[in-house]
Amino acid sequence: MDFKIVGFAPDEMSHDSFLNIIRAPIKLESPRFAEQLEQFCQRCSYVSGHEGGEKSFDVLRTRLEQLGTGKKEQNRLFYMALPPSIFPSMQEGLKKHCYSKRGASRIIHRAFNGVFQIEKPFGHDLESSRELQRALDPNWREDEIFRVDHYLGKEVVNNLLVLRFGNEIFGAIWNARHIDSIEISITEAGGAEGRGSYFNGVGAIRDVMQNHLTQILALLTMERPRSFSADDLCAEKARVLDWMLPIEHLDTIIGQYGKSPDGNKPAFKDEEDVPNDSRCVTFCAAVGHIENERWAGVPFLLKAGKALNESLTEIKINFKPSTNATIFSTRALCSNTMTIRVQPSEGVFLRINTSVPSLTAQQTSAMDLDLTYHGREIPEAYEVLLLDALKGDEARSVRGDELDASWKIWTPLLHYLDDESAGVRPREYAYGSHGPEGLEEFIASHQRKSSEGSKQRNNMGKSFREDVSQTGTSSLTTNAKDEPP
Amino acid sequence: MDFKIVGFAPDEMSHDSFLNIIRAPIKLESPRFAEQLEQFCQRCSYVSGHEGGEKSFDVLRTRLEQLGTGKKEQNRLFYMALPPSIFPSMQEGLKKHCYSKRGASRIIHRAFNGVFQIEKPFGHDLESSRELQRALDPNWREDEIFRVDHYLGKEVVNNLLVLRFGNEIFGAIWNARHIDSIEISITEAGGAEGRGSYFNGVGAIRDVMQNHLTQILALLTMERPRSFSADDLCAEKARVLDWMLPIEHLDTIIGQYGKSPDGNKPAFKDEEDVPNDSRCVTFCAAVGHIENERWAGVPFLLKAGKALNESLTEIKINFKPSTNATIFSTRALCSNTMTIRVQPSEGVFLRINTSVPSLTAQQTSAMDLDLTYHGREIPEAYEVLLLDALKGDEARSVRGDELDASWKIWTPLLHYLDDESAGVRPREYAYGSHGPEGLEEFIASHQRKSSEGSKQRNNMGKSFREDVSQTGTSSLTTNAKDEPP
Repeated sequence: MDFKIVGFAPDEMSHDSFLNIIRAPIKLESPRFAEQLEQFCQRCSYVSGHEGGEKSFDVLRTRLEQLGTGKKEQNRLFYMALPPSIFPSMQEGLKKHCYSKRGASRIIHRAFNGVFQIEKPFGHDLESSRELQRALDPNWREDEIFRVDHYLGKEVVNNLLVLRFGNEIFGAIWNARHIDSIEISITEAGGAEGRGSYFNGVGAIRDVMQNHLTQILALLTMERPRSFSADDLCAEKARVLDWMLPIEHLDTIIGQYGKSPDGNKPAFKDEEDVPNDSRCVTFCAAVGHIENERWAGVPFLLKAGKALNESLTEIKINFKPSTNATIFSTRALCSNTMTIRVQPSEGVFLRINTSVPSLTAQQTSAMDLDLTYHGREIPEAYEVLLLDALKGDEARSVRGDELDASWKIWTPLLHYLDDESAGVRPREYAYGSHGPEGLEEFIASHQRKSSEGSKQRNNMGKSFREDVSQTGTSSLTTNAKDEPP
Repeated sequence: MDFKIVGFAPDEMSHDSFLNIIRAPIKLESPRFAEQLEQFCQRCSYVSGHEGGEKSFDVLRTRLEQLGTGKKEQNRLFYMALPPSIFPSMQEGLKKHCYSKRGASRIIHRAFNGVFQIEKPFGHDLESSRELQRALDPNWREDEIFRVDHYLGKEVVNNLLVLRFGNEIFGAIWNARHIDSIEISITEAGGAEGRGSYFNGVGAIRDVMQNHLTQILALLTMERPRSFSADDLCAEKARVLDWMLPIEHLDTIIGQYGKSPDGNKPAFKDEEDVPNDSRCVTFCAAVGHIENERWAGVPFLLKAGKALNESLTEIKINFKPSTNATIFSTRALCSNTMTIRVQPSEGVFLRINTSVPSLTAQQTSAMDLDLTYHGREIPEAYEVLLLDALKGDEARSVRGDELDASWKIWTPLLHYLDDESAGVRPREYAYGSHGPEGLEEFIASHQRKSSEGSKQRNNMGKSFREDVSQTGTSSLTTNAKDEPP
């Protein structure tokens, strides 16, 4: 593929300094890699926008045209990683000065010409997101806009579609009749170290819940798309998010981390540029509901936070206790669960009950099946998504209507939390803990009231790895025979 | 446990000859085993019934009483491996002369006193089975009778109950809505070598289909029992067999093996004492139907035979093609299957579709999950069943009403095949082949007419191992994106 990469920022920087920025993070595992890296660097150059305004864009355009000299067509992909305040003027300038004029008519359907790739956050609430969209509308078609959510580039998230829609045994039970609850967690062991000022203005909900977590939820719960084309896929995601009720503040528990118990780890408020009275939410657990036919009654436990006991992104589908389980000794059976681990290492696990060979009495044990296909290297999420943008495939990008629907879910809660007069304060939790006090009661109070559920081991709120360590060693006994008293 | 074993047969035999019969088949893997074997032999003795009639039983009773001298109670387990013709007089003699009188009142509930264990065959059709039962009725209570089907002692057959009734994800789909077809096969690579005369009088249907295969079918398809007690379990098995329609001869294909293509293996008719015009069925494939709410419409493909391409006892549950599968490229997806291998090595495998990491296009691959609990030694079926009988636990024994129901299913077909005037002749198939010609067409014609089914790979009629070897290497590609033409 013939391509050039041009860096563009306000800073003045020499060509060599720019290349050093590119080289710095790359680990050279073999001499062959060093060679490849230098070939890559030959494609890269830098343009400074220090002059500001139209002049900067002129300089950029000149460079782009110069690089395209002699080429029949010039396809341009603008990759934007900018604070929202600069978005409007930047996209307008790029459209006006740098939109490629050669070959445009040929590539409308591939959405390749002047593709506009935006990193999160897309606004800070419903209104600001719409404002941003209104600024984009006159300049870029929806199929020219790639809103990147790198979770959508994860192989395991992709696998959700195959598991749900390619397997009768899972497709048949993917509803409120057989699913008790669904949990999605994005936790980080680290705090906001060094990024306190940025994080103070964003908080956990805008940082990962409105976007990553809500996108995963949409893929988990959407109806079958007509096809896996961008149009059909995004339409179904938007549709199920429309069915989701806005998160009620009464259905949340919010926290901000304090020092670690040993005092070694700082509180959020100890971070530079974080005010002492910061009400920034560094932890949020929320219970959501999707009121359509498939999902009515199923609680969705959504959890995100920093400075917790582990770094883990995980989806857990808790199936109902077996309707027939009363014939087994109740202690022995686990409810079936499907656990989809997105990070640290991608994997899908199904927990089932099976019999344990025994001469004395019927015994059962829970076992975890690995549903992950092993044997090929898993591409990095950004590899996948950048390639998608180059190819003009929007299926893994976030469409405007999805974005709108997800802001509708979270904006009322965000406004309530932002409101100075309400003065809601997050509960403090210790750096490295599971989260604020009251979390377990919160989870318990939002569990589905199932008469059978209480009889069996229910793992809601526990991470997969905690479970596994229990199960590995236990082989609980079911005595299912008539023994004399 | 304090016990003695007494051999009883018409032959005259010295004590040492008897012990040698016991020792002969046992492989001594360590010196410790040799010691244990000698300890075991000290519990064994022989009584000859060569005098016949009441005299023989008197000799046996004398030995039993002598062995029980000084014991407060004498529990007796009679293990019968006899031709049906001797049954009636034998059980009557045992009841009259050898039924234990001491301790009987104490053990009624444990069904331990004078337990009567019968090996197959239980009769040769419905009428003869009932006659046998009528002979037993005045002498033995149902809870004193253990009808052994050693397949019920297999761990993997036991696991069926845990998988079905202890897992919501399987329990929910265990019906005609989600299952396309069920196959049960009992095939042997060996012929009737040396046992031709016996087999000529029995045939494949009476040998394994009316009993083993039908028992497996009952466990697979029964409703949830109230408990795993013998009463509840046997009642549910009998109930579902009552719902099964008698097998129609038009829904069968029968065969008798000829020589192997290289001529090295003999035809069935080459066996000693097998008449040249034998119509003995050494292969039968039949399609059955259970006309209750859960199973109406699901074909049950039942297959058994000798001198086939492999020795394999296997259950295969073919789930329907995913209702959503049209969004995938059709070649790529397998229907989900659950394969329960009873022999040669027990195991349960679930085939699902999962995604294969790829940068170029969405790819899927079938993978087989092993649902078998590993890590404990699996007890032998007869260990399990003998221990059951000693403990008086009838849950894994075949009750009279089940036996009756299973003969009802097979008797019309057997009578049709036995009928000299109809003169039905089995189709000859080569020793070592898959079965008679026309088998594939027969299977195809009895598949469920599902519009989606034909679009996907359907493995009905293929053994699990054949499938696996295909899947291991293939990674079929689904291009689920909108590619330009």
